[in-house]
Amino acid sequence: MVDVQPVSEAGRFPAKSTVGEVFPVRATVFREGHDAYAAEAVLVRPDGTEASRVRMQEVGIGLDHYEAMVQADTVGEWTFRVESWSDPWGTWVHDAGIKIPAGIDTALMCAEGAVVLERAAGRRGMDPPDRDARAVLRAGIRTLADDDVAPTDRFRALMSGPVPAVMVRYPLRDRRTLSPDYPLRVERPLALAGAWYEMFPRSAGAHVDPKTGQWVSGTLRTAAEELPRIAGMGFDIVYLTPVHPIGTTFRKGRNNTLEAKPGDPGSPYAIGSPDGGHDAIEPSLGTFEDFDYFVARARELGLEVALDLALQCSPDHPWVKDHPQWFAHRADGTIAYAENPPKKYQDIYPLYFDADPKGLRSEIRRVLDVWISHGVTAFRVDNPHTKPLPFWQKLLADLHTDHPDVLFLSEAFTRPAMMLTLAKCGFHQSYTYFSWRNTKHELYEYLTTVGSDQAAWMRPSFWPTTHDILTPYMQHGGVGAFAVRAVLAALGAPTWGIYSGYELVENVPRPGFEEQIDNEKYEFRPRDWSEGDKFGIALLLGRLNQIRRAHPALRQLRNVRMHSTDNDHLVCFSRHLAPEHSATGMRDVVITVVNIDPWNTQEGWVHLDLQSLGLPVDRGLTVIDELTGDSHEWWTDNFVRLAPESTCAHVMTVSAP
Amino acid sequence: MVDVQPVSEAGRFPAKSTVGEVFPVRATVFREGHDAYAAEAVLVRPDGTEASRVRMQEVGIGLDHYEAMVQADTVGEWTFRVESWSDPWGTWVHDAGIKIPAGIDTALMCAEGAVVLERAAGRRGMDPPDRDARAVLRAGIRTLADDDVAPTDRFRALMSGPVPAVMVRYPLRDRRTLSPDYPLRVERPLALAGAWYEMFPRSAGAHVDPKTGQWVSGTLRTAAEELPRIAGMGFDIVYLTPVHPIGTTFRKGRNNTLEAKPGDPGSPYAIGSPDGGHDAIEPSLGTFEDFDYFVARARELGLEVALDLALQCSPDHPWVKDHPQWFAHRADGTIAYAENPPKKYQDIYPLYFDADPKGLRSEIRRVLDVWISHGVTAFRVDNPHTKPLPFWQKLLADLHTDHPDVLFLSEAFTRPAMMLTLAKCGFHQSYTYFSWRNTKHELYEYLTTVGSDQAAWMRPSFWPTTHDILTPYMQHGGVGAFAVRAVLAALGAPTWGIYSGYELVENVPRPGFEEQIDNEKYEFRPRDWSEGDKFGIALLLGRLNQIRRAHPALRQLRNVRMHSTDNDHLVCFSRHLAPEHSATGMRDVVITVVNIDPWNTQEGWVHLDLQSLGLPVDRGLTVIDELTGDSHEWWTDNFVRLAPESTCAHVMTVSAP
Repeated sequence: MVDVQPVSEAGRFPAKSTVGEVFPVRATVFREGHDAYAAEAVLVRPDGTEASRVRMQEVGIGLDHYEAMVQADTVGEWTFRVESWSDPWGTWVHDAGIKIPAGIDTALMCAEGAVVLERAAGRRGMDPPDRDARAVLRAGIRTLADDDVAPTDRFRALMSGPVPAVMVRYPLRDRRTLSPDYPLRVERPLALAGAWYEMFPRSAGAHVDPKTGQWVSGTLRTAAEELPRIAGMGFDIVYLTPVHPIGTTFRKGRNNTLEAKPGDPGSPYAIGSPDGGHDAIEPSLGTFEDFDYFVARARELGLEVALDLALQCSPDHPWVKDHPQWFAHRADGTIAYAENPPKKYQDIYPLYFDADPKGLRSEIRRVLDVWISHGVTAFRVDNPHTKPLPFWQKLLADLHTDHPDVLFLSEAFTRPAMMLTLAKCGFHQSYTYFSWRNTKHELYEYLTTVGSDQAAWMRPSFWPTTHDILTPYMQHGGVGAFAVRAVLAALGAPTWGIYSGYELVENVPRPGFEEQIDNEKYEFRPRDWSEGDKFGIALLLGRLNQIRRAHPALRQLRNVRMHSTDNDHLVCFSRHLAPEHSATGMRDVVITVVNIDPWNTQEGWVHLDLQSLGLPVDRGLTVIDELTGDSHEWWTDNFVRLAPESTCAHVMTVSAP
Repeated sequence: MVDVQPVSEAGRFPAKSTVGEVFPVRATVFREGHDAYAAEAVLVRPDGTEASRVRMQEVGIGLDHYEAMVQADTVGEWTFRVESWSDPWGTWVHDAGIKIPAGIDTALMCAEGAVVLERAAGRRGMDPPDRDARAVLRAGIRTLADDDVAPTDRFRALMSGPVPAVMVRYPLRDRRTLSPDYPLRVERPLALAGAWYEMFPRSAGAHVDPKTGQWVSGTLRTAAEELPRIAGMGFDIVYLTPVHPIGTTFRKGRNNTLEAKPGDPGSPYAIGSPDGGHDAIEPSLGTFEDFDYFVARARELGLEVALDLALQCSPDHPWVKDHPQWFAHRADGTIAYAENPPKKYQDIYPLYFDADPKGLRSEIRRVLDVWISHGVTAFRVDNPHTKPLPFWQKLLADLHTDHPDVLFLSEAFTRPAMMLTLAKCGFHQSYTYFSWRNTKHELYEYLTTVGSDQAAWMRPSFWPTTHDILTPYMQHGGVGAFAVRAVLAALGAPTWGIYSGYELVENVPRPGFEEQIDNEKYEFRPRDWSEGDKFGIALLLGRLNQIRRAHPALRQLRNVRMHSTDNDHLVCFSRHLAPEHSATGMRDVVITVVNIDPWNTQEGWVHLDLQSLGLPVDRGLTVIDELTGDSHEWWTDNFVRLAPESTCAHVMTVSAP
C-alpha cells in the first residue's frame, strides 16, 4: 500500500476537515498474485477510539487506486489510516463462481468454501461475528457439505442466502497491513462554510457636520445599526477592517495620494498613534464599551465578528519607541519603511521578525487575546505571506490549543506554494484567485482545483470584490457582472464574502488601478441605503444565503462536479450530498447554471452527468429553480435560456430519494 | 521548502542512481516577503562527507519549483538534502540596481552594500572565504565607501569587478533551512545501462542423432560456442533461461500441448526432478564444471552471465517432499497447482510464502549464493509480482548488503503500482510496456514517462521480443519491424535486450497467441548461423551497441527529449550529456530519427529543440549519421527521408563544444 492521501510531507502538516465534511481517503493498494483483497479507511477519534471504518472502492481502471468517502463528527485532533487485507471469502467466491458452473473441482470447491466459513464462524479478536451471524455461517457450512445436493445447487443456495451479507459485515481479514496513523485536524463547520460581510465601521454613519463643514467619523455604535440589514441578508460573519488608532506621520490622502489634507482620516492599515497600537481602538470610533456593544448586537442577530489583523505599524505606533528591535534598521540607523523598489511606503514600517521572534510573537499573541476576550471569533489576516512561516506555525498552533474555535482567514494573493503552505501552517481559510477566474474555461478549471487534492489543507473563500480588488469584469460588466459573480461565489465555494457597497454596484475604478475610486481606505464613505434595493442585488445575496442554509450540499467543498454545456457563456456545476452522508438521510443535489455574459441573453444545451449525482438517467426529474420557485422537468440534456442580471442563473434542486 | 524529490513514502524506499548518472533534485522553495533567496542540492557520500553542492535553478514560471542536476561518483548508501537560505547579497544587488540608477537613497545603498561585504569578508564557519577572496571583498568595501566618487559610479565599478563572482563562490547564507536527509542508493553503472542477450542454452548445439532419430540436447559447452558471436555484437550480458533439472509429471509438449511426447524436453520453467531443484543443473546440459567453463569463457569475452530465477516447482521438485510447508494445500490435502480459473497449470506448483516465510527465504538465498559463487552476476526474475513484496524487500536488502554488484531484473508485466513498487523494493531493472508501445503517440508518451519521476526507482529495460512476447507489430512488420524496434530499444532506454533468433527475423506466431510458434520453451531450437547475416539485423545490433559504447549520453535515462515531426511515421528523440557532467568534459548529443513504418519510405520535417540540447540555434550544425558515416548540415528544421529496413533511422551525433 502506497500513496495514502490526504498526507502532506509525511504527516508534518495534518490534513484538515470540519465536522460533517465529506472527504476522500485514498491509497494505491495492490498485492501479489490473483487473490482477492480489500482496503478500508479507518477514522480514529481524538480519544483513540475507532469512529468509522469504510470499505474503499477501486476508482479508475487498472491503476489500483482505492477511495472511501468519510466524515468526522467532532472537533479535535483525529487520525486516520488505511488497512488492507487478503479476502479469502472474495477469492473463494470468485474461483467457485467460475469453477463450479464449469464443472471443475466442484466437490473440492464446496469443501474449500466450508473451510472459509468455518474460519469466519470461529473467529475471535477484532469485530467477531455475533451469535446470529455465527448461526448463519454454520447453516452455510451445512449447505456446502450436503452431499445429497449437487455442488452447483449447493453453491447457488449459499450465494442466494444470507451468508454473503454476513461475510461483508464480518469479513475475514487475512494478513492485515496497516498504514501509519496520519494526523487529521477536525474543526468547526464555520471553518469550511460561511458567508462573510466586510465593512469599514467608520463609514457607517459618517457625515459632514453642517456647522463646521468637517467630516465626522462613523462609530462602532453607528456601524452596529448596519447589523440588522447584514443579518437580514443571511450572512454569518461581519468582518471589520482595522479599528485601531491611525498614524499621522506620512498619512496618505484620498485616493492614495502621498499627502493627506486636513481632515483626511488616513488608512486604517497605518496602525498606531499616541492613542495606542493593535490593542487599542481609534478614539473617533469609540471605546471598548462600544466595541462590546457592537459584538453583543451582532451576536443577538446571529452574526459572529471578525477583525482585521494587519501586522504593520505607522511610524507613530508605540512599538516603534518601546521595541525598536521589532523593526529593521538601515545602515544610517533609521527604521526601514516598506519598499518595493523604486516604490516607497513611508507611512508603513513592516515588522522585523528575526531579532526577537519570541518577544514579538508573545506580544502579538497578547493582542489577539485582547480581541478574543472581547468576543472576536475570527481574524482576516492582511498579507500573511510577508511574515515568516514559522511565526504563523507557532502562533496558530498555540491559538489552536487555547481557542480552537477562533478562525484565521489568510489574505495571501501570492504564488500557489506559499498560499497552500500558509493553509498548512494553520490558517483555516484563504482568499483565492477566484476574482481573476472569469471565463468558462477558467472557472471549470478553478472550481475543480480548489475542490481537489489541495482541499485537504486550503479552504477557499470566494470574494467577487474587496476594498483592494475591482477586476475589469466587475468594472465593465454593470449590474449583470455583480449578479453573476455573486452566484458563482456563493455556490462555487462553501465560504464566500461580500464587501459592503456590492449591493449598490459600486464599480468605478481609480483610473489605471483595479480598485475603487474614492476608496474608503483613505476616506469616509457613508452609503445611502434609503433608496432601497434598486438593482436587486441585495435580494439576490439574501436569496443565495437562504439557499446555502437550506442545502447542506452547498456547504461542502470537495463535492463539486462540472457539467458540460455547448455555449461558452454557460457554466454548469453541481454539488451533491449522498443520503449516507446527510444528517437527514436525504440526498441533496443542487445544480447551478450561470450565464456569465453580463450583457446578453444566452441559450444552449446543458449536459448533466446524472449518474455521478446518484440520480436516475432513464426518466425525467422534477427540478425546482430556487431563485424563481419555478419547477421544470429535466433530463440528461436540457435546453437553457438565461437573460443577464437578476435572471442570470438557474439554481436547481432535485426532488429525488 | 516542501516537496523535495526524489523521495518516496518519506524516504521508506531510497531513491536510486548509478555512478555517473545525471539526475534532478527538485523542491518547491519559497519565503515570505521580497528578499532574494537561494537553494542548493547537497549530495553526501556514504562516509558522511559532502560530495557536491549545486545551486538550484528556478524551473517553470511562478510556481517556486527549483531543480539541480547532480551526479554521484561511488557505489554506496548516499544521502541528499536541499538547503535554502536568505541571500542578502542578491537582495542588495536587486535593490541597489533599481534605486541607485533612479537616484534614490544612493549613498545609503552604498553603505548597505558595504555592510553586506563586511559580513561576507568576516565570515567564519561553513565554506569561509579564503585570503584572496577576503582581499577582493575588502577592496569592494573601499570602492563603495569612496566618497570622492559618485554612488552610481561606485556601484558600477563594484558590479563590473571581481566581487560578484566571489560572492557567488562564497555566499552569505542567512537563515539556512535544511530539508531532512533523504536516502539515495548509488549502484554500479550496469544497473542502469547495458545490452542483454537472451538464449536457451539447450538449443545451441542441439541436433537429431542420425542413428536414433532422437534429439540430443545442446549443452553448456556447445552454448559457449555462441559467446564470441554474442560478444562480437557488443552485448554486455548473456542471459540464460533456467538450467535446472526439468520435471516429468504433467510435462508440457511442443507448442504448450498438455501431453509431452517421448523425447520432448519439457519447459525449463517446470523446475525440479529427482536430479535436483533450483541449485542443480539439468544433466543433459552438463555439470557445474561445464557451467564454470561457460562463465569463464563469457568473462574472457567481456560478457557477464545472468540466470533466470523462476520461483516455482514441478511436482517432482525435491522441495515438494522435503518442505511441504512451502506449498499451499487444498481442502482435500493435495498440493495446489497453479490456476487462473478455469485454466489449470498442473505441471507447476507455486510456492506458498505464508507458512514458513523465513525458512523459504533462507533456502532461496542459499540457492542464489550457489549461483553467485559460480560467477552469476545478474538474475532475471520470472513473475516477481506473484510473490509477496516483503519477501523481495528482505531478500534483496540482504543481497544488496552482501553482494551489491549482483543485479536483479524484474519480469513483472503487470499493473503500474506493482511494477514500480517492485523496483522500490530493490529490483535494479524492470521489463516494461515498451513492446506494446508502437505508434508515434505511444512512443512519445512512453519514452517521456520512463525517463521522468519514476526513473528514480524503476529503470526500464527495453526488449523488442522475448521468448514469451511476439507482438502483432513484430509478426506483421517483416524485416523492417525488427530493424525499427532494435533502434528504438537500443537508443530509447539505456538498457535493452535481444532474444536469440532476432537476427533471423523469427516472426511466426503460434496461431492466436502473441508468442512464437515452435517456442523453444517446449522444444529444442538450434539455429543455423552459417547462412550469415542475410537480413542485416546482426550488423545493426552490433552497430547500435557500438554507438551506445561510444556515446555516454545513450547510457543515461533521464536525459531523453522528444522532438516534433510533421509525419506520424517519423519519431525523433535525443539524448544529451552536458560538458559539466561528461567524463571527457565534452558535450555529447545523439539525435535519433526513426521511420516506424516497416513497409514504406517516409519523409517529412523534423523540428529540433536545439536550445534544450545546449546547441546554437543561429547556425548550421555538422551532424554525422553513425549508421552510415554520412555527414550533413542540420538546423532547427530538417527534411528527412527514410526508407524501411536497414536504413530506417538516422542516428546523428553532433560535433559541437
